[in-house]
Amino acid sequence: MTKPIHDLVIVGAGPSALTAAIYATRENIDTVLIEKGVIGGLLATIDKIENYPGFPEGIEGLTLAMDFQAQAEKFGAKIELAAVREIKKTKGTFLIKTDVGEFQSRTVLIASGSDHRKLGIPGEAGHAHYCATCDGAFYRDKKLVVIGGGNSAVQEAIFLTKFATHIDLVARVGIEASEILQKDLAQFVKNKQITVHENWTSDEIITTNGQITAVKMHATTAPDKQQELKTDGVFVFIGVVPNTGFLSGSGIKLDSAGHIITDENLMTNIPGIFASGDVRSGATKQVTSACGEGTTAALAIREYLATIA
Amino acid sequence: MTKPIHDLVIVGAGPSALTAAIYATRENIDTVLIEKGVIGGLLATIDKIENYPGFPEGIEGLTLAMDFQAQAEKFGAKIELAAVREIKKTKGTFLIKTDVGEFQSRTVLIASGSDHRKLGIPGEAGHAHYCATCDGAFYRDKKLVVIGGGNSAVQEAIFLTKFATHIDLVARVGIEASEILQKDLAQFVKNKQITVHENWTSDEIITTNGQITAVKMHATTAPDKQQELKTDGVFVFIGVVPNTGFLSGSGIKLDSAGHIITDENLMTNIPGIFASGDVRSGATKQVTSACGEGTTAALAIREYLATIA
Repeated sequence: MTKPIHDLVIVGAGPSALTAAIYATRENIDTVLIEKGVIGGLLATIDKIENYPGFPEGIEGLTLAMDFQAQAEKFGAKIELAAVREIKKTKGTFLIKTDVGEFQSRTVLIASGSDHRKLGIPGEAGHAHYCATCDGAFYRDKKLVVIGGGNSAVQEAIFLTKFATHIDLVARVGIEASEILQKDLAQFVKNKQITVHENWTSDEIITTNGQITAVKMHATTAPDKQQELKTDGVFVFIGVVPNTGFLSGSGIKLDSAGHIITDENLMTNIPGIFASGDVRSGATKQVTSACGEGTTAALAIREYLATIA
Repeated sequence: MTKPIHDLVIVGAGPSALTAAIYATRENIDTVLIEKGVIGGLLATIDKIENYPGFPEGIEGLTLAMDFQAQAEKFGAKIELAAVREIKKTKGTFLIKTDVGEFQSRTVLIASGSDHRKLGIPGEAGHAHYCATCDGAFYRDKKLVVIGGGNSAVQEAIFLTKFATHIDLVARVGIEASEILQKDLAQFVKNKQITVHENWTSDEIITTNGQITAVKMHATTAPDKQQELKTDGVFVFIGVVPNTGFLSGSGIKLDSAGHIITDENLMTNIPGIFASGDVRSGATKQVTSACGEGTTAALAIREYLATIA
């Protein structure tokens, strides 16, 4: 039996992928999504999302993700649970190899998202936060520990001073941020809003009755030197890991952090392959932006399909 | 009494403006929106929106707009009903002059949207459609009239053949579309899916019991020569009009159609003034994209405010 050639295969089933699927299927573009993890992606892991427009009281990430899914499926999108291994250009179409078989498609949208890099220490899972914009407002007048020493850790620590009364910023080595950010940070240190702990490595996030109470750490250069920082919450900013491992050998251009580079129509350097959402270089890592990019990609794919029809 | 200096004044209160307000106010950025028409903008005028992710059964445009408003106001956004007359740079801030007084702000986001250009003929209001992506799916297996002769009319007419059994394309002068589109169109004409009527001017959209039944028109060069086209629906694509009239003399760079030109952070050529949504050059005119851009703008404004603090 000959395999069907789909109009569009989307790698991922997070907000950007599902929005693109809603737009594409409503335009009678035959669309299959391939998801290796959870439908909804990182959105499905958020307790409550307060900044997705349309839900004044906020909504559980998982509930919103399930609504996205229902909407895409209503218009005819099909979701396959599989891990993509390789995308290969063949004559006029693309071959998408997965761990459960192959798919063939005229166009591909890579919306495979990214994961926050984890510390991998006890107490982290289910307690630490990875997005200040999303979760900072929960810590008005509380104490926080921010872990990380790069631009995003410094920037988000400064941002979190809008809510928290005091922040302990813990860097495994030193603070390695831009000059402007360093200068800004110095001001907050001077005002005693942020205390910087350089050369400290976090060992454990201590919780009591499900609430964070402290972070246990040791001096990076002297493992015997230990201390505990009392805190109400922990934010971790040690980078994100775009899910682009399966693209090695595909010829798709990535930036130095592994995100996919696109043009303004969200097309990659390979005509017919598009990228949107967190996996894209320059993405804001917000659900609204991921949805907006999914829309832009779907409209560009519709135009692209017309040119090859 | 000294006027307060706001952190952010947003011109408009449509999806892009309200999303930016949700993000900005959640980050303690003092934000005022100035709206001259309806809160929600064009969204509030849509009967039912089926492609905004999160509402599998669709939602009334007005209901969604009111939810956006409630969410922005919950976090502290203030909405003023006024028409902006002029934006002027003063020492370190911007002066926003309106018909009900002046506002002062450190940054400005222009999210004033656009309006579909109207035919201005009887029967048009409340019956004609202006967005094929939004409303095309309502005309599966129906007959349609598409009015317009430019790129977007031809492109959308072709797109609507996915749903409609036959389309009458009516152009006041001739078809003035790109070569590729002309070629595509010829194919649909050959297949009798689209009939082109050049040099015809629409006079009236005829309705019976609130349902469109026909379009009455006359030959552009011979007013006595008249005919009626029977149809189930009418789509009008004679351009959009970005709401940028109040920017004349502001120095903000516009494209040839009057849309605001921005960089990738959605900042205009004037530092501190940003633009997002339908009013922006390159916008896709979709609610999701408008929300995504509102988010991008709010995050860029937050960074900009940090640099001038």
